[in-house]
Amino acid sequence: MAGAFGGFKGCQKIRGPQLRSLMEAKDYFLFDCDGVIWHGEQAVTGAAKVVNALISRGKNVVFVTNNSTRPRESYVHKFFRLGFTGVMLEQIFSSGYCSALYLRDVVKVRGQVFVIGCDGLRRELQEAGIPCVEEEDDPAATIYDCALAPDVKAVLVGHDDKLTFLKLAKASCFLRDPECLFLATDNDPWHPLSGGRILPGSGSLIAALEVASGRKATVIGKPSRFMFECISSQFSGVDPAQCLMVGDRLETDMLFGSNCGLDTMLTLTGVSQLEDAEVYRSSELTANHSLVPDYVVDTIADFLPAFEELDEQIN
Amino acid sequence: MAGAFGGFKGCQKIRGPQLRSLMEAKDYFLFDCDGVIWHGEQAVTGAAKVVNALISRGKNVVFVTNNSTRPRESYVHKFFRLGFTGVMLEQIFSSGYCSALYLRDVVKVRGQVFVIGCDGLRRELQEAGIPCVEEEDDPAATIYDCALAPDVKAVLVGHDDKLTFLKLAKASCFLRDPECLFLATDNDPWHPLSGGRILPGSGSLIAALEVASGRKATVIGKPSRFMFECISSQFSGVDPAQCLMVGDRLETDMLFGSNCGLDTMLTLTGVSQLEDAEVYRSSELTANHSLVPDYVVDTIADFLPAFEELDEQIN
Repeated sequence: MAGAFGGFKGCQKIRGPQLRSLMEAKDYFLFDCDGVIWHGEQAVTGAAKVVNALISRGKNVVFVTNNSTRPRESYVHKFFRLGFTGVMLEQIFSSGYCSALYLRDVVKVRGQVFVIGCDGLRRELQEAGIPCVEEEDDPAATIYDCALAPDVKAVLVGHDDKLTFLKLAKASCFLRDPECLFLATDNDPWHPLSGGRILPGSGSLIAALEVASGRKATVIGKPSRFMFECISSQFSGVDPAQCLMVGDRLETDMLFGSNCGLDTMLTLTGVSQLEDAEVYRSSELTANHSLVPDYVVDTIADFLPAFEELDEQIN
Repeated sequence: MAGAFGGFKGCQKIRGPQLRSLMEAKDYFLFDCDGVIWHGEQAVTGAAKVVNALISRGKNVVFVTNNSTRPRESYVHKFFRLGFTGVMLEQIFSSGYCSALYLRDVVKVRGQVFVIGCDGLRRELQEAGIPCVEEEDDPAATIYDCALAPDVKAVLVGHDDKLTFLKLAKASCFLRDPECLFLATDNDPWHPLSGGRILPGSGSLIAALEVASGRKATVIGKPSRFMFECISSQFSGVDPAQCLMVGDRLETDMLFGSNCGLDTMLTLTGVSQLEDAEVYRSSELTANHSLVPDYVVDTIADFLPAFEELDEQIN
């Protein structure tokens, strides 16, 4: 459907009847979470109604998030708590969960995984039966004299707001072994906090390790295609042409959609703004055009009038 | 003198009479420390004799180190402890000291400096009269709710083996202000430890911050020219053609020498090996040729027979 409206491809502000046709045309709605569905513990106004309405109309809704800090169960609870009543475990694809699938099913890791990340990521791995190196709690331990876990076959880097130099140094040492895999849940550079503050993201920690190790990490999360492969293998026979990827970040969500052949929609409730998309659209670097959304909405609540029109048609 | 021997430029293994002529031709000997003069608390065998002999023959000897972890006084003590009896404060140019000069004399910083680095770096800045943000000791503090120091006009990143996520996050927040300078003592990616371990260097921490902030750091240490400018302004009238830069790392020491128009000598007691230099020499990328040393010695102790020959000539 994208590009069917002539002129420059992409950035089409979409509302009313056009949005309704798009909703009718698609069977799978892939939503990013942070900045799209909620901000922290606050749902985006109308988001729960939209998601519940899509589900009740028989659409497949899945959540594709680079946030690796919580295990999937915790997402189910959060959705429920914020009024998204019908969201099930099977609909949630986090970069932590997909990293566990990658380690277990793709590379079939034998040995321990050293995790830079939150407890939720470690829990996700453990649920997939993947042994993780236990963190030591000794604050006096240093890289000069600490013990290094044996049999570490992968380093997995995710968002970690308890990062220490010791973790970074240990990971660098493990990566000296060329047989030790170097994986990352996602490559997000930073995340917005309230009051204009920012939080360094996994991408920041990966960069530190890439320099220290002289190696490149394999990224599991968006914009890499792997998360879509996880969705495809769970919902067999997903046709990319029937999917809409909705996100707030051009460099992850829109590029992910492009990489997987999905139509893409930017919602302006998060990180990226329309001007950012237009800069990519007018860029002379063709690679940048993959970051341009097909459609733009102010918020996913813009779907609501379309549902009402649909209901009017039906009644 | 470099390249005077015909054939491929650089990597000339030098000994005996040729080394003696080189020593006679040069007035300034710039030595890197780690991997050249010492390994940790162990002096390279013969290094003290070489340095003492150069000084007693009236040569100017200066030490140019990217190591920012100790203030200059501490270097003087270390030299003395390891048998280098004549080394004075004025001969020591560390990236920490030069960063302090840069902040005080070049950018004339007004306001506080937020330091990611060791206590020695903070002490060096304080001695230059530059106020640093005090570290808070509260282990429960987080970026979500901690206080952020006011009036921070520069972030300075150096080697920091007590790095925490909180320091990284605070620095990222300060760097949101385009008027806050982003400086780094050096860009060394990692440092060797015993037993095959490595230590992530400043370059690793800079990369993390560059990704989180979307900005590029200004690097004070080698290979940037600024440390040579500090030497030049202290020893007025230094002619680059009279200088020999001796180091163990191609990407810092040799490139620094090239950038400043100095003859360069690689000593094989540290990080880089002859094969690494030959890879750069045969590279099709001309920029890589600046990393090729003019001369190569196994150790700076190779200077010793040259002194003996000189002494024989004199007697």
